[in-house]
Amino acid sequence: MPFITENKKVGLLGIPFSKGQPRGGTEQGPQAIREAGIVEKLEQLGTQVCDHGDLTFDYIENDTPDGNVKNPRTVGHANKKISKAVSDIIYNGQLCLNLGGDHSMAMGTIHGHAQVEPDLVVVWVDAHADINTPLTSPSGNIHGMPLSFIVKELDGYVPTVKGFEWVKPCLSVKDLVYIGLRDVDPGERWIIEKFGIKAFSMQEVDKLGIREVMEQALKAIDPSGTRPIHLSFDVDALDPTITPSTGTPVHGGLSFREGQYIMEELANTGRLNCIDVAEVNPSLGNKEENTLTTETTLEVLNKCFGQKRGGGFPSNYVMPRA
Amino acid sequence: MPFITENKKVGLLGIPFSKGQPRGGTEQGPQAIREAGIVEKLEQLGTQVCDHGDLTFDYIENDTPDGNVKNPRTVGHANKKISKAVSDIIYNGQLCLNLGGDHSMAMGTIHGHAQVEPDLVVVWVDAHADINTPLTSPSGNIHGMPLSFIVKELDGYVPTVKGFEWVKPCLSVKDLVYIGLRDVDPGERWIIEKFGIKAFSMQEVDKLGIREVMEQALKAIDPSGTRPIHLSFDVDALDPTITPSTGTPVHGGLSFREGQYIMEELANTGRLNCIDVAEVNPSLGNKEENTLTTETTLEVLNKCFGQKRGGGFPSNYVMPRA
Amino acid sequence: MPFITENKKVGLLGIPFSKGQPRGGTEQGPQAIREAGIVEKLEQLGTQVCDHGDLTFDYIENDTPDGNVKNPRTVGHANKKISKAVSDIIYNGQLCLNLGGDHSMAMGTIHGHAQVEPDLVVVWVDAHADINTPLTSPSGNIHGMPLSFIVKELDGYVPTVKGFEWVKPCLSVKDLVYIGLRDVDPGERWIIEKFGIKAFSMQEVDKLGIREVMEQALKAIDPSGTRPIHLSFDVDALDPTITPSTGTPVHGGLSFREGQYIMEELANTGRLNCIDVAEVNPSLGNKEENTLTTETTLEVLNKCFGQKRGGGFPSNYVMPRA
Ligand SMILES: [Mn+2]
Ligand SMILES: [Mn+2]
Ligand SMILES: [Mn+2]
Ligand SMILES: [Mn+2]
Ligand SMILES: [Mn+2]
Ligand SMILES: [Mn+2]
Repeated sequence: MPFITENKKVGLLGIPFSKGQPRGGTEQGPQAIREAGIVEKLEQLGTQVCDHGDLTFDYIENDTPDGNVKNPRTVGHANKKISKAVSDIIYNGQLCLNLGGDHSMAMGTIHGHAQVEPDLVVVWVDAHADINTPLTSPSGNIHGMPLSFIVKELDGYVPTVKGFEWVKPCLSVKDLVYIGLRDVDPGERWIIEKFGIKAFSMQEVDKLGIREVMEQALKAIDPSGTRPIHLSFDVDALDPTITPSTGTPVHGGLSFREGQYIMEELANTGRLNCIDVAEVNPSLGNKEENTLTTETTLEVLNKCFGQKRGGGFPSNYVMPRA
Repeated sequence: MPFITENKKVGLLGIPFSKGQPRGGTEQGPQAIREAGIVEKLEQLGTQVCDHGDLTFDYIENDTPDGNVKNPRTVGHANKKISKAVSDIIYNGQLCLNLGGDHSMAMGTIHGHAQVEPDLVVVWVDAHADINTPLTSPSGNIHGMPLSFIVKELDGYVPTVKGFEWVKPCLSVKDLVYIGLRDVDPGERWIIEKFGIKAFSMQEVDKLGIREVMEQALKAIDPSGTRPIHLSFDVDALDPTITPSTGTPVHGGLSFREGQYIMEELANTGRLNCIDVAEVNPSLGNKEENTLTTETTLEVLNKCFGQKRGGGFPSNYVMPRA
Repeated sequence: MPFITENKKVGLLGIPFSKGQPRGGTEQGPQAIREAGIVEKLEQLGTQVCDHGDLTFDYIENDTPDGNVKNPRTVGHANKKISKAVSDIIYNGQLCLNLGGDHSMAMGTIHGHAQVEPDLVVVWVDAHADINTPLTSPSGNIHGMPLSFIVKELDGYVPTVKGFEWVKPCLSVKDLVYIGLRDVDPGERWIIEKFGIKAFSMQEVDKLGIREVMEQALKAIDPSGTRPIHLSFDVDALDPTITPSTGTPVHGGLSFREGQYIMEELANTGRLNCIDVAEVNPSLGNKEENTLTTETTLEVLNKCFGQKRGGGFPSNYVMPRA
């Protein structure tokens, strides 16, 4: 199992996709994050970056809703491709960094990750729970449903949907933890309570503080400290004042510092194995807000790869003497 | 004693009053909060709203200062009317929600509440202590003095003031707690220390954290967890970056998240019985700042009525099966 | 040893210097802080202010770099003058308040302080560690090196530099604590680890909370609670949203409230003996940002002199009776 250290191999995968939600723009996310300097930064931090480029997706014509679900075949087929690509990267021993793209992609990334590492656990950092079923979703947008398709215990609650025939549930509720929730639909809350999913909404973040949240979160899903971690990071988890260019912002989010702290603690486990960055949407907001969004995202993300606010030096550092 | 649940009856009372301070504008507060959608929101949360409309006030001519105190008769007579209206609403078993209006109104609301529930306790959320006496007030504005007129222990420190002959002190210092203070006058601090009023200034909020503040605050005034709670919420308790349209903003206030947390914890008691919302002033700031102020206020206030950041569902919710 | 109380004598010293870094503007810092009302405010707080005016500095011609180090003679000679001035003020029993000026000045202020109080300890509040040696500094700007010249344990790592022949190391690593770090160079981190300097980066602030940070910080450098404290406060320790007019801003800094809390706790020791305010640069940012920067700085600084968010009253206060 990979550990984050100098010389860690990072497989970068662009997922320019936006059909899991109604707004165009998230398909420009990978380019925006690349232009903000992700590759250079990762290399500065001592990793070896293998850039797998951007996936390309087929847009199925006449992709009529299946019940409430919008663009079902397009999103389903895209995620099949995503799953395969992620699976290959992880199989090759690289830490897979997925640049989205709307959050529907996480169905594919977790699915793909699970094909290689069935013992994975998921840390879902988001203002939203993204676990509506096709029957509970108020909007029909799949970026609010990806977890419902892959969570094993929801068998019986999720109908078959065109385009998703290939998906095999691969994640147990006990291996999932939420951080940052503050806009949760009734059906989602029902699922969280019914199945006892560990969820740290902003109320819990305020109550416990971010240190205690991270300690409890990691202990809940991985008490032995041995399992591969999949981080699914929706930038709307952060407060809209620091990541404004996103489609469904909710006030009262994680601060820049809390975002960094979460990633530092995840990096400290040495077991981050796959990372999604979702819902950066450069078509929303002005240029200044775009830049703020990508810079905040990058700065927070760097902490996943070992950057520390207290500083650091390479293992071969030699202090000059007078 | 009422508990906040679905089907809770809420009595809405508009108090369009601004003569407790020098700036016009707080008389537009009730309308601004209504236009932001308070009634619709309360109904969505499952309460039954009874809107009692806005009070109308007499403006006494030649209302010359009494000593240092400005507009004494106008403010005194208005609060007599406020006291009666609040008393009637609470007597009828409704949770009384008072939309101000400047904070001088709290003399009336607490007085009225106490006529029905003499055992009430007060949680005063404010940047200011509003307990200057007519003799210590640096400004002579009554919105900085309402507590001095109704606190029993200040007998001997508060002179008779024209227009206030009807007021009977009805609150003991031991039944009052402050949260959010950061601009406290010398006489006010003297009172807090002399009488041992429990006060969580922003220094204590920073020191203890908001969780500990709420635990200590509720324990201080209601260790048995049985008494009716009067919340008097001055929107200037929140930081001016989130409630800018208010008359006496002070930097370094409660965050949006802390504001929500306070209300969530008060709602959890099930004993919120009367709520004041004071000092929203739509005449201050531009349109954007006005909207921010009312939206922040509404979002925070919703938490008093059971809205939870972690989500919720109605008691009769049925999860759809595939 | 002086204690902060009413009637405390404060010696105000302007240090209009900017040659420790490449940008002009910090030489206007003293004037900007004076115009924001520092003297009036200190007097309101009950101190006796003795304004020693602004130092004037010689600018050495042809001050070519010494190795990597820029403006070595100019900065060296200026600090010799600063050391003498600070030493004189402290010798006369005044709490010395140094208005900078870039942070290279702290070499002189600590050196001067140590001539009178060799037992001093240093609380360094900054986004940066400012302990690069002339050999590790990436920039050659002395405002990133002042501590390296005066820390005893760095003997052997710091070469002789033109203009600094007069400096005698006077501070031990065990008597130094950092708060607010978030941009630390490799050599600086090496020094911190090698010598075990107590450092609370923003990661530790997030982890421990500001209360625990202050308790641990003061306990680390002064467990007996008896030593004179030198506070060296770089305004870039605070978040750039509240002190934007500074040369090397770094996002994710101390909040306004945390800044105030740090100073309140330092004031509570009663042993603040010398205070530096560094890196206010009125030439950066627009007028609004300038005002925000100086007002934030002043408000935070006031807490060093006994201003409390929970309020206060003079020792001779008499409460008026009715
Ligand atoms: Mn989201
Ligand atoms: Mn999401
Ligand atoms: Mn008030
Ligand atoms: Mn107030
Ligand atoms: Mn700095
Ligand atoms: Mn500095």
